Amino acid sequence: MIDLRSDTVTQPTPEMRRAMSHAEVGDDVLGEDPTVMKLERQVAEMLGKEAALFVPSGTMGNQLGVRVHCRPGDEFLCESQCHVYHYEQAAYAQLFGIATQPVETLHGLPTIEQIAPRVRGSDFHHARTKLLCLENTHNRHGGVVLDYDRMVEVCTWAADTGLARHLDGARLWNACAASGRTPADWVQHFDTVSVCFSKGLGAPVGSALAGPQQLVDEARRVRKALGGGTRQMGILAAGALHALEHHFPKLGEDHDKAEALRAAIDKAPHLKVERPDAQLTNLVFFHVASEWGTAAEFASQAREQGVAMFALDPTRVRAVVHRDLTMDDIRQAGEILQQIAEAQPVA
Amino acid sequence: MIDLRSDTVTQPTPEMRRAMSHAEVGDDVLGEDPTVMKLERQVAEMLGKEAALFVPSGTMGNQLGVRVHCRPGDEFLCESQCHVYHYEQAAYAQLFGIATQPVETLHGLPTIEQIAPRVRGSDFHHARTKLLCLENTHNRHGGVVLDYDRMVEVCTWAADTGLARHLDGARLWNACAASGRTPADWVQHFDTVSVCFSKGLGAPVGSALAGPQQLVDEARRVRKALGGGTRQMGILAAGALHALEHHFPKLGEDHDKAEALRAAIDKAPHLKVERPDAQLTNLVFFHVASEWGTAAEFASQAREQGVAMFALDPTRVRAVVHRDLTMDDIRQAGEILQQIAEAQPVA
Amino acid sequence: MIDLRSDTVTQPTPEMRRAMSHAEVGDDVLGEDPTVMKLERQVAEMLGKEAALFVPSGTMGNQLGVRVHCRPGDEFLCESQCHVYHYEQAAYAQLFGIATQPVETLHGLPTIEQIAPRVRGSDFHHARTKLLCLENTHNRHGGVVLDYDRMVEVCTWAADTGLARHLDGARLWNACAASGRTPADWVQHFDTVSVCFSKGLGAPVGSALAGPQQLVDEARRVRKALGGGTRQMGILAAGALHALEHHFPKLGEDHDKAEALRAAIDKAPHLKVERPDAQLTNLVFFHVASEWGTAAEFASQAREQGVAMFALDPTRVRAVVHRDLTMDDIRQAGEILQQIAEAQPVA
Amino acid sequence: MIDLRSDTVTQPTPEMRRAMSHAEVGDDVLGEDPTVMKLERQVAEMLGKEAALFVPSGTMGNQLGVRVHCRPGDEFLCESQCHVYHYEQAAYAQLFGIATQPVETLHGLPTIEQIAPRVRGSDFHHARTKLLCLENTHNRHGGVVLDYDRMVEVCTWAADTGLARHLDGARLWNACAASGRTPADWVQHFDTVSVCFSKGLGAPVGSALAGPQQLVDEARRVRKALGGGTRQMGILAAGALHALEHHFPKLGEDHDKAEALRAAIDKAPHLKVERPDAQLTNLVFFHVASEWGTAAEFASQAREQGVAMFALDPTRVRAVVHRDLTMDDIRQAGEILQQIAEAQPVA
Repeated sequence: MIDLRSDTVTQPTPEMRRAMSHAEVGDDVLGEDPTVMKLERQVAEMLGKEAALFVPSGTMGNQLGVRVHCRPGDEFLCESQCHVYHYEQAAYAQLFGIATQPVETLHGLPTIEQIAPRVRGSDFHHARTKLLCLENTHNRHGGVVLDYDRMVEVCTWAADTGLARHLDGARLWNACAASGRTPADWVQHFDTVSVCFSKGLGAPVGSALAGPQQLVDEARRVRKALGGGTRQMGILAAGALHALEHHFPKLGEDHDKAEALRAAIDKAPHLKVERPDAQLTNLVFFHVASEWGTAAEFASQAREQGVAMFALDPTRVRAVVHRDLTMDDIRQAGEILQQIAEAQPVA
Repeated sequence: MIDLRSDTVTQPTPEMRRAMSHAEVGDDVLGEDPTVMKLERQVAEMLGKEAALFVPSGTMGNQLGVRVHCRPGDEFLCESQCHVYHYEQAAYAQLFGIATQPVETLHGLPTIEQIAPRVRGSDFHHARTKLLCLENTHNRHGGVVLDYDRMVEVCTWAADTGLARHLDGARLWNACAASGRTPADWVQHFDTVSVCFSKGLGAPVGSALAGPQQLVDEARRVRKALGGGTRQMGILAAGALHALEHHFPKLGEDHDKAEALRAAIDKAPHLKVERPDAQLTNLVFFHVASEWGTAAEFASQAREQGVAMFALDPTRVRAVVHRDLTMDDIRQAGEILQQIAEAQPVA
Repeated sequence: MIDLRSDTVTQPTPEMRRAMSHAEVGDDVLGEDPTVMKLERQVAEMLGKEAALFVPSGTMGNQLGVRVHCRPGDEFLCESQCHVYHYEQAAYAQLFGIATQPVETLHGLPTIEQIAPRVRGSDFHHARTKLLCLENTHNRHGGVVLDYDRMVEVCTWAADTGLARHLDGARLWNACAASGRTPADWVQHFDTVSVCFSKGLGAPVGSALAGPQQLVDEARRVRKALGGGTRQMGILAAGALHALEHHFPKLGEDHDKAEALRAAIDKAPHLKVERPDAQLTNLVFFHVASEWGTAAEFASQAREQGVAMFALDPTRVRAVVHRDLTMDDIRQAGEILQQIAEAQPVA
Repeated sequence: MIDLRSDTVTQPTPEMRRAMSHAEVGDDVLGEDPTVMKLERQVAEMLGKEAALFVPSGTMGNQLGVRVHCRPGDEFLCESQCHVYHYEQAAYAQLFGIATQPVETLHGLPTIEQIAPRVRGSDFHHARTKLLCLENTHNRHGGVVLDYDRMVEVCTWAADTGLARHLDGARLWNACAASGRTPADWVQHFDTVSVCFSKGLGAPVGSALAGPQQLVDEARRVRKALGGGTRQMGILAAGALHALEHHFPKLGEDHDKAEALRAAIDKAPHLKVERPDAQLTNLVFFHVASEWGTAAEFASQAREQGVAMFALDPTRVRAVVHRDLTMDDIRQAGEILQQIAEAQPVA
C-alpha cells in the first residue's frame, strides 16, 4: 500500500528507534526528564520563544494555545477551514467555554478588512475578542504556505488592536522548507505557536507549544488538568529530537515528490490538481470530474489498487506525500491514479 | 425624545400596571404562582406546544433552547447574524460548552445546500451537529419575516437529517402580524421556540420557552442553575398576559408606522432604506451615503434633535417602531431625519 | 393554611403593590431604569460597598459572587451545609467550571484550623484556592447568626492569606435584626455580598450583589450571559425598595414569633427544638422522636391540619416564621403541633 | 539517591526498552496501531471488561471515567482524600462542569450510611448524583487495600440505588498482589476502572480506562478533545505490555520491602509508622514526633543524606517502595532514617 492518507502515518526509522531506546528519562511530572527538558529548550530556541512545552498531540498544543489567551466569555477569530476550528472537536468550547468567530477566506489568510469589523469591545452583548489564530501551512486550503508579507500585516494589525496571536504550526516545518525562512522568522509575529513532530517530521508522537515563559507555565498547568502530564516521556521526546536533527533538513524532498505527483495527476483525464495562488508543499489536492464519478469512488478504487487517500468532500481528494514514500512510490502512485482516471468507475 | 432605538423601551400602560398590581401570585420556585402558571399554559397553547416556561429574558429563553438540545461536544448551526450567535455573549459556549457553526446568508434563512455539508456525524474530529437554530423575524437582517415555504423546506430537511430545531421568536409576533399566520402555524416546524413579551408587545419583562414537556422540564431545571428561578413572578407574568391579550392584536399598526417612516426616509437625500427581498415589519434599516457622513454621525445628530436610533455599523442605522410611538411621532421623526439629511453633518 | 415552609412565600402587601404599580421604569439593559438604579445605589450604600447589582434570585447573586472571584481551575472554600454548595445545583461547577472544598462544621462557621490546611497554592495537582464563602444567617444550621468575633477572625485570616471573601447574606437582614449590628458592619469583612429581598423582607422577587465597582461591572456582564439582563425591571425594584424601607425595620417581630413557636413546640411530647449554641432568628428546627414517627409523617399530618412545613431529613422539621403570619397564627400553629405530637401518628 | 518519593520514578529496564524499540506501530488516531490495540484488548481481558482505552496518564483515565458517567449538572460521590478529588486539579469541574460531594472516611472506604443521605434525586435545587468513585489501593490513606467485603456491599448498594461506579485503580495491581485476588475479581463491582502502568509496574508512560464498549467509545471521543489522541503510541504501549507480563507478577516483592522499611522505622525514636486497620502495600506512611521537628525538616535531612521522600503535611512523611529499589537499598534507607531520628534536627 502506498499510503497517501496523511503524513501522520510515518513510521519511526531504525535510527530513531535506537535514539528513543537509549533516551535518558525521568519523571516529567516532577520536572526531571532530561530528554523532555532538552527538547523543550531546543524547540524554544528554534522558534525564538522563551519556553516550550512537550504535549502528546497537536490538538493539545493548539487548544492550550487558545486557552492561555482566552477564558469563558472570550472568543477568538480564526479561518473557517482551520484545524483548530474544524478538526479538534470544538475543544475550545467543550472544555474551556471559549467561543469563536470563523472567517471564510480563499487561501487560508483573512484580510484586515475581514477581521476588523469582527473585533468586539466591552459591550456586554458580545464575547470579548481576544485572539487571532492562524495556521501555516494551511491544511484544508491545500497545504499552502501563508503569504509572508500579508501575514505580517495582519499580525501587526492584530497586535496593534490588542489581539493575541496563536499560530497552528503543525506543518510550520513545511512552510520553512518551502519558503527558505527559518521557524523563528515565521513565528516572531505570534505570541504562541504549536508545532508537530509526528507529521512530516516522522516522530511517532508529540507536539510542542512555545511562547512566553508565563504562558507556557500556565499551559503546563492546564496540560495537567487535561491529563497530559506524563512520566518518563523522554522516550518520545528523543524521537522528536531525532526528527528535528535528521528529518527536518530533508523535508524539501517531500515537496519535490508532491510536485511530481501533481504533474502525474495533471496528465490524467477527469482529474484536476488544485493550484491555489500560493506556495505549495507536501499536500496534493485534486478534483474528480463528476462525469467520472465521486471523489469517494475514486479514492475507493485507488485503495483497491494500492494507493490510499482520503476524499475531502464529494469532488475532492487529498493525497499527502511524506518521508516514508520514495520518488518511485510516487511515480507508481501517479500511474495508478492515471489508470483509474482513464477507466470508468466501477459502479 | 422619539425613541426609535428599540422596541424594548416600551413602557407598561396604565391598564397593564393595573393588571400587574392586582395579579394573584405565589412562590413560583414551589410551582405555586397562579399567574405564571396561567401565562405558561396560555403561551403553550398559542404556540401549539405541550408546555412553556416563563423566563426573565429572551437571552435566557434562547440559551435554554440551545441547551436542552445540546451538551458539551455538540454544536448547533445558525445564521451568522442571528441574535443567539451575535448578541448573547456566546453563553452557549461560555456556560454550556456548546459550539456553533454560523452560516452567512442574504436574508437570514440558510439554504439546505449551505447546511448539508456542515452537518457532522460521529467522526471524533468534530463536534456532533445536533441543532438548527433560526430567527423570525430576523433582527439584524432588517426585521424581515422568513419565507415560510423555504423555512418549512429547511426545517423538514433538518428533521429528516436528525437535527433538532429551535426558533428564536423574540419577534415572532411581528411575523404573525405581517404574514397573517398564527404563532402555532409558524412554530409547528420547530421543537422549541422562545418568544418575548417585552419588545413590541410592551410588557416590562419576560420571555417564554415552549416545547415538549420533557424539554421544558429540563429547561426549568437549568433555569434554576442560571438563577432564573424566582418567587412571586406573577406580577410580571400579569404584564405578559395583558400584552398578549391587548397588544398583540394591534401589532400590525407598528408595521404601518414603520412603512410610513420608510417612505419619509426614502424621500431624504443621502439616505436609502434597505428593502430586502422579504416581508418587512417594525424595523427600519437605512444607509447613510458616505458623502453625507457616517451612520454614527447621523444618529448622533438625530439624537440631538430628538430622534434616538442606533448606528449598526459605519454606514447603516436601525430605527425600531413600536407601540409607544404614534403616527404623529413617526411623521415628526421622518421630517427631522429629512432635515438632517438635507443639511451637512456637523464636523 | 399557616404556611411555615419558607419566608419566600410572603406576599406583597397592598402598599407594596401600589409602590410597584407607580414605579418609574426604563430599559435596564440600556442602563435606564431609574428605580433599579435607585435600588442599586441604596443597597450599595446600606452595605457600605461601592456598587450593587439587582438580580432575579439569590442563586444568581451568589453564583455571580463566586464567579467574579474564581475561574475554571480555581476553587472556593465553603461550609458543607451552605446554600451555595447545597441548594444551587452546583451552578459554580456546572456553568463556570469552578470547584469547591466543603468544610463540615457544627454551627456554620469554619475555624481557621479547618480552613488553613485546605488552602492550596500553585502546585499544579490542585485547583487554586481563591475564595472563602460564608453564609449569615446560616439556613441549614437553623438560621443561626454567625458569631461576629469569630467570623471577623476567620475573614481577617482569609484576607491575609490572599483569599477573597463572599457572603451569602440572603438573610443578612435577620442577622442584623437579631444582633443589632448594621448590614455594613457585618459585610465590611467581605469583598462581595448577596442579599435577598424576597424572603423575610417580603418583596416578590429579587436579590442584589454588592461589592467593588470593578467586580460588580464584571457581574453585570456575566448576568447578561446568564439571561439576567432585563428591561423595565423597576417594577420589581420598587417592591424591594418598599421592603427595605417598611419591612426591614420590623423584622425583629418575626424572631419574637419564632421564639413563641419554639416555646410551644418545647412543651409538646416527642418533639425537641434545636437550640444550637448561637443566636437564633426566624427559623425553627425541631426533632421528631422516632417513637412518634418520622419527620415526614409529622409534616404530612401537620399539613392536613393546616400547618405547612418541610421535613429536612428523616428526623428533623423546619418551620420558618415570616411577616405574613401573626402571633395568633403562630399560637394556633403551636397548638396544632402539640396536638399532633400528643396523638399517635396515622400509619 | 534512594528515591522513595513515588513509584512513578521507576525507570524502564533494558528489556522493556528493547520491547519498546521493536514495537510494531501505526497511526492510533486512525485505529491502526497494532501494539496499542493489543494492549487495549489484553487490559480489557485482564479486567473482565468489554473494552479498554490507552491514555497518557492516570489523570486522563480517571477524568474520562467520571466524564462518561456525568455531565454538567451532575455530581459524583467520592472519598475526600482520593486522587480524583485531591490531585487532578478538579478537572471534572474545570473541564466538564461536573460537581462532587467528598465524604470523609477513616480508611478510604465510605459506608452506606455516609453515602445514602447524600444521594440526590430530581429536586432541581441539587445536582443529580450519578456516580460513586472509589480508589484501590488508596494512596492518601496509606496505600491500603480496600476491605473487599465492605467494598462489595457499598458497590452493590450503589448499583441498586442507580449510581454508576468508577474505580481509580492506579495501584489496583498492588491490591491484587496483596490480596491474592485477580484484577477482574476486584473490578467486577465497577462499571469503569482506570489502571496505571507507570507506577509500580514500571512502564514509562500510560494508563488505561476499561469498561463497557459504549462508554469506552465515548471516552475515546472525549480523549480526542482532551488532546490525548496520538499517533504511533505503540512505542509506549509496548512498555505497558512488557510491564504487565514481566513486572506485575513480581509486585509482591515491593510489599515485602515496604514491610522491611516499616520495621526499620518502627525501631527509630520519634518516628511512628501508620498501620491503619487495613492491608498495607508499597506505601509507608510515618509520623514525625513534634519534639524531633516537622515532617518537612525530616524529609529535607533525609534527602541530604541520600533518601528522597515527600512530607505530606506538617507531621507525616510518605515513603514509596518500588521495583527500582533492592532490599539492600531499603535496608540502607532504614538505617539512614534511624540515624536522622536519633540525632537532633538541624535548625
